[in-house]
Amino acid sequence: MRQAGRILPEYRAVRERLSLLDLCKTPEAAAEVTVVAVDRLGVDAAIIFADILLLAEPLGVGLEFVGGEGPVIRRPVRAPADVDRLPAVDPLERVPFVFEAVRLARQALAGRVPLIGFAGGPFTVASYLIEGHASQDFLETKGLMHREPAAWHALMEKLAVLTIAYLNGQIAAGADAVQLFDSWIGCLAPEDYRRGVLPHVRRVIAGLAPGVPVIHFGTGTAGLLELMREAGGTVIGLDWRVDLGQAWRRLGAGVGVQGNLDPALLLADPAGIRQGVRAVLQSAARRPGHVFNLGHGVLPATPWTHAKAMVEMVHEESRR
Amino acid sequence: MRQAGRILPEYRAVRERLSLLDLCKTPEAAAEVTVVAVDRLGVDAAIIFADILLLAEPLGVGLEFVGGEGPVIRRPVRAPADVDRLPAVDPLERVPFVFEAVRLARQALAGRVPLIGFAGGPFTVASYLIEGHASQDFLETKGLMHREPAAWHALMEKLAVLTIAYLNGQIAAGADAVQLFDSWIGCLAPEDYRRGVLPHVRRVIAGLAPGVPVIHFGTGTAGLLELMREAGGTVIGLDWRVDLGQAWRRLGAGVGVQGNLDPALLLADPAGIRQGVRAVLQSAARRPGHVFNLGHGVLPATPWTHAKAMVEMVHEESRR
Repeated sequence: MRQAGRILPEYRAVRERLSLLDLCKTPEAAAEVTVVAVDRLGVDAAIIFADILLLAEPLGVGLEFVGGEGPVIRRPVRAPADVDRLPAVDPLERVPFVFEAVRLARQALAGRVPLIGFAGGPFTVASYLIEGHASQDFLETKGLMHREPAAWHALMEKLAVLTIAYLNGQIAAGADAVQLFDSWIGCLAPEDYRRGVLPHVRRVIAGLAPGVPVIHFGTGTAGLLELMREAGGTVIGLDWRVDLGQAWRRLGAGVGVQGNLDPALLLADPAGIRQGVRAVLQSAARRPGHVFNLGHGVLPATPWTHAKAMVEMVHEESRR
Repeated sequence: MRQAGRILPEYRAVRERLSLLDLCKTPEAAAEVTVVAVDRLGVDAAIIFADILLLAEPLGVGLEFVGGEGPVIRRPVRAPADVDRLPAVDPLERVPFVFEAVRLARQALAGRVPLIGFAGGPFTVASYLIEGHASQDFLETKGLMHREPAAWHALMEKLAVLTIAYLNGQIAAGADAVQLFDSWIGCLAPEDYRRGVLPHVRRVIAGLAPGVPVIHFGTGTAGLLELMREAGGTVIGLDWRVDLGQAWRRLGAGVGVQGNLDPALLLADPAGIRQGVRAVLQSAARRPGHVFNLGHGVLPATPWTHAKAMVEMVHEESRR
């Protein structure tokens, strides 16, 4: 899971000298923190270190990372004119450091484990552009979707085109698989997702280089699973608020699933963690096509030794 | 839906002279704002004005409502000793104003519409007691559940006993139905709900006066529906993040459903609201046993005329 590195002492040391944005823009450093997470935690895949809002900077909306608060967009997209004003952006030209980080990480991994590239999903990126910051109720986002449907779809189309180029660029640079983090779709009514989001996600996934596995992830999606499947993805990423086995049955046999331990469980003791790991593996009935993972990002308070212990437990329990 | 009154000018006028807690403790005023919501909005049922944390005050944990911030518990319940220290409370003695408000509201309604009593669900009340305030990730709550299961169950048992007496008191005072607001259960993995919450909710519902309809409500519950059904309730309350028809099929024919318009839709224009109302009614296939409602509380920014227009649309569309 993305952000696993941030609990590591090596990552924190790098962050003492580099801000989040500067770290993303320094390919050697981004590749280094990507690889160190594999070394320390013993996971079976790497995911490139980056941020889902890196594309917001060339869009000219005034992206900043304010200490403790997370991302802030100084000139949020609120009206149709704001959508019109967004420039066409070529990621290869404007965020070359991401592709360079992918190349360097792949080199450093030397085939030990596969490397996953990623992007924010169009709804999730749109929600930051519109709200201007992390949100709980997404009222501005839903407001644009409901009151200005033409502007909404225009924004989603721009983001879809951008996301395709961005992910294909990562694939060309050496990513073995890509993950689409449409993390906040769980705030939507299924009907709103179907009308306002699904066509754009489908376009993104259909536009990616063929043969590359795509992990399609969201949180709070227990009411959206069939629609996520319709939008596409080789693997559907599940958060912990759904039974993995039940979700897989709803999704059908033709798709893999990723998940879904509650990240809060990594704050418990080893016995509690093992119980949770077993429950997830049992729920998956140990069928091929299940990628064990947390249900969402690693919580900052997680002791990294607990994350490492969890990885070992998964390996042990899977061998049985 | 609870809190519909707070968008009304009459309610705001009352709140100029009375704090939230004082309003709850003044039965004449609580009954008045209960009834005015029916008069103004034209809804088909009243729900008593109260707060789910009123029982926290006699528990001695230092409940305060801090302007803008919502409830704060000054002495949160974090350790087994904190659970042991919670006194046994007789609601009839300690929060008599609630029952008096029910009596007065029922009198004032004079049979025009039924009156719904309510309580917070045991998990939801526990989460406030443990976190000390509203939470997004419920880490302290999950921490107690995972690390101190005996203390967790002891706390839930105390709350279950209290809730039974509290709801039966409201029924005795004249509530025609009761609603259990276990609003925050949606943060839990299904397995954690099954082990840590379900038995206590089942106990509450089984302990209520027979023959009185019980609405069992939560948000973000698309992954928990079957378990909520197992815990009980005449009607399961759904939020907007699930398709109502699909949820009803999962719940089975023997239970009613309540919901589930996204409250954010009341900020849209009338055409958008009507589209949403129709989608919910169609999803319910206009079957008996569906109680139209919002999927969660009315948002403070909602123009009350929009809420009234929605009620009229539901009546119109239902007559077709």
